Amino acid sequence: MDILIIGIAGGSGSGKSTITRWIADRFGEKVTIIRHDDYYKAQHDLTYEERTKQNYDCPEAFDTALLVEHLKKLKNGESVHCPVYDYTVHDRSDKTTLIVPTPVLLIDGILVLQDKSLLDLLDVKLFVDTDADVRILRRLQRDVDERGRSVKSVINQYLDTVKPMHELYVEPSKKNADIIIPEGGHNLVALEMLESKLCRHLGC
Amino acid sequence: MDILIIGIAGGSGSGKSTITRWIADRFGEKVTIIRHDDYYKAQHDLTYEERTKQNYDCPEAFDTALLVEHLKKLKNGESVHCPVYDYTVHDRSDKTTLIVPTPVLLIDGILVLQDKSLLDLLDVKLFVDTDADVRILRRLQRDVDERGRSVKSVINQYLDTVKPMHELYVEPSKKNADIIIPEGGHNLVALEMLESKLCRHLGC
Repeated sequence: MDILIIGIAGGSGSGKSTITRWIADRFGEKVTIIRHDDYYKAQHDLTYEERTKQNYDCPEAFDTALLVEHLKKLKNGESVHCPVYDYTVHDRSDKTTLIVPTPVLLIDGILVLQDKSLLDLLDVKLFVDTDADVRILRRLQRDVDERGRSVKSVINQYLDTVKPMHELYVEPSKKNADIIIPEGGHNLVALEMLESKLCRHLGC
Repeated sequence: MDILIIGIAGGSGSGKSTITRWIADRFGEKVTIIRHDDYYKAQHDLTYEERTKQNYDCPEAFDTALLVEHLKKLKNGESVHCPVYDYTVHDRSDKTTLIVPTPVLLIDGILVLQDKSLLDLLDVKLFVDTDADVRILRRLQRDVDERGRSVKSVINQYLDTVKPMHELYVEPSKKNADIIIPEGGHNLVALEMLESKLCRHLGC
């Protein structure tokens, strides 16, 4: 099977998950979504208190080597066991998810265009580019409405780590993109162009 | 005939013409290239000396209303007579080029994503995004090698009008793009995605 690996990067709140879901909805079982976030490092050796204070927006927070190993296996036709992260305890759980090779793999995450070994495996590198003010407003609404967090805690986390890490790692990784998509999931022309590319690959 | 109109904008030296040619080479007579530059305003009432001093990098330099009129006619299945600009005298010539409707029209120019009435006619809005240093080096090489100009005159023109107009009009028009293509004609993944979109439109 000829497997196309598409990386979808962009800042928090940029709309990359909307794009990812839109593609997955269109092509169903031919597409598998793999989230870089599921590859957050296991940190069993830290206390809960220590884990809450970690920086989760920098490259070191991710076990990218494991993701790269898994992508190579999938590309070779082998199935893999993707880790499952437990956000309630900020640690990797004992569970895994079986991922079988499909013709298209979508790799979604803020930093998927940042790591050289990961970049080398991507056939198409997308960066979803949305203004910082729009992004923080989306994140604020999501975290307050859906995750029950206080406005103050979202603002503090944004200014303490999300914004500086975005400027240090995410924004410069845009340089590695093949295509930059403004405004993410609301950009129908870009989505249809992606769809055409996938249709061609899948022969549909 | 269902006509797809694609606008390809980006700064001087960004690589937009390379993209335009690449597409035209692939799809032959199904594609027509229309250059915004051919619609530079007629300025028969000015002396040669005055014409050499005009600013050719701002929206007012173009007869965009005529281009819009022509695109509407082509979209309606009518042929048009595109003006031919004579760069040796900095004025519109008496000649015209017959343009007949084709399934794809590529509109190429630094400011094709800047004018509202033009934007409304574009089905796909592309912006070719290349760093300013790379762009000026390409322009310098082209103008010195191919057009016999002095390095000093290219630098002066760049700093006097090209750069300020780019920052005032071209760069902000990126906001209107559906897709941003880094590095223009050297970006094979982006070109192939465009090709897929056109293949789908053309049924090939």
